[in-house]
Amino acid sequence: MFSRSLIRLSATTARLNKLGITLPPPGAPKANYNMSCVTQGNQLFISGHLPVRSDGSMVTGKLGDTVSVDEGYAAARLCGLGMLSSIQNRIGDLDNVIKINKVFGIVNSTPDFEEQHLVLNGASDLIMEVFEKKRGYHARSAIGTNTLPLGVSVEVECILEIKQGSAREV
Amino acid sequence: MFSRSLIRLSATTARLNKLGITLPPPGAPKANYNMSCVTQGNQLFISGHLPVRSDGSMVTGKLGDTVSVDEGYAAARLCGLGMLSSIQNRIGDLDNVIKINKVFGIVNSTPDFEEQHLVLNGASDLIMEVFEKKRGYHARSAIGTNTLPLGVSVEVECILEIKQGSAREV
Amino acid sequence: MFSRSLIRLSATTARLNKLGITLPPPGAPKANYNMSCVTQGNQLFISGHLPVRSDGSMVTGKLGDTVSVDEGYAAARLCGLGMLSSIQNRIGDLDNVIKINKVFGIVNSTPDFEEQHLVLNGASDLIMEVFEKKRGYHARSAIGTNTLPLGVSVEVECILEIKQGSAREV
Repeated sequence: MFSRSLIRLSATTARLNKLGITLPPPGAPKANYNMSCVTQGNQLFISGHLPVRSDGSMVTGKLGDTVSVDEGYAAARLCGLGMLSSIQNRIGDLDNVIKINKVFGIVNSTPDFEEQHLVLNGASDLIMEVFEKKRGYHARSAIGTNTLPLGVSVEVECILEIKQGSAREV
Repeated sequence: MFSRSLIRLSATTARLNKLGITLPPPGAPKANYNMSCVTQGNQLFISGHLPVRSDGSMVTGKLGDTVSVDEGYAAARLCGLGMLSSIQNRIGDLDNVIKINKVFGIVNSTPDFEEQHLVLNGASDLIMEVFEKKRGYHARSAIGTNTLPLGVSVEVECILEIKQGSAREV
Repeated sequence: MFSRSLIRLSATTARLNKLGITLPPPGAPKANYNMSCVTQGNQLFISGHLPVRSDGSMVTGKLGDTVSVDEGYAAARLCGLGMLSSIQNRIGDLDNVIKINKVFGIVNSTPDFEEQHLVLNGASDLIMEVFEKKRGYHARSAIGTNTLPLGVSVEVECILEIKQGSAREV
């Protein structure tokens, strides 16, 4: 007889499944830094994540030029999915997320593109879908810039609160 | 007979009055994020604020082009006033601010404009006027960029320490 | 007879000496903000540091134009050295650094320069040399921008955890 506990999913994982969201593999450490870093027990700093597609390629190009707002929105969502995967990899289960505190997003833009906020909604909407208002409602800044690493269209980082003791050592 | 306590102002509000500073209405939640977000009980993250004038219009244009350093300074001060209003709205009274930790400001600039630090002084000077050295003395970064949301001239965010328990739920 | 304790170096200072690293003088307070600011007892926010050479001049110019990746890497290392000096000045001894949490770096770039991550390694590699993996392994974001204060090539800020009570008052 199978114990029900063996197939019990965490509430957040169940929600991901219900939403049809599949997380990508977690980001590997890059050079001399990590994709996530914890301090003070319950605050987690997440590195800037790039928009990596499921085939490993990245969304590149500038908003206002070759990339539309819809494509930028989708790219910001990819950044968000990568962040969720890095968080899950570090704290074991997304149920251990207490709250998303702050999201900062940078949009690769031509000098006359002024809708960075609409692009960043791709990351914010994902966070609210997964964590809902009580855990997901965050502060945010969206800015433009003239260029980003590897020519990506968007980069997103965040700071969050996690359950005390849930982050594994690295 | 009126109790004096009915007209007692908090020390910070009294200081705002003395300085002749009127705060704008607090920023409303935008899309799927909030203008302020708290974690760990006493740390408050403030979203990037834009320079909104009292008539609701925004200061737009690039430093080095159509916007002078003085106009940029005034725009950064408007961002600061908006932040103070959002903070007050979240924690009830600015007396509940323990300390401004960090200010980050981004200035919409032509590629050859190099005085972002002078522009950001508009926000830093406001903070020091209101909170004085003990509570207001903050770390800061000022950078330029080629474009910002809605074409605004400056965007400013901050992180601060607040009195335990002073932030209302959202 | 000299007590050995009189010439005992802190472990981190000894490591700096072994690595042949000399820290520059700490950054002076600028306008109405400080180069470092502490909150909650054990979290330290460091202002954006510019690449100042030992003769006081700064590394200026854009990556992709007059500044090579190697020169940018060296500039990011100078930013890192300045940060370490500001940290040491605030907490007395770098042994009081518990952990570097987050590094954020901005690279002055032409619109087609896409190797900001290689430039920022100059700061990350320095941090890892000095603090090694257990204390130095940090989250990071690297972005480009079209211009920076005073025309510098790189600006770097960080957030770190320090020993409770180690920060002197300012």
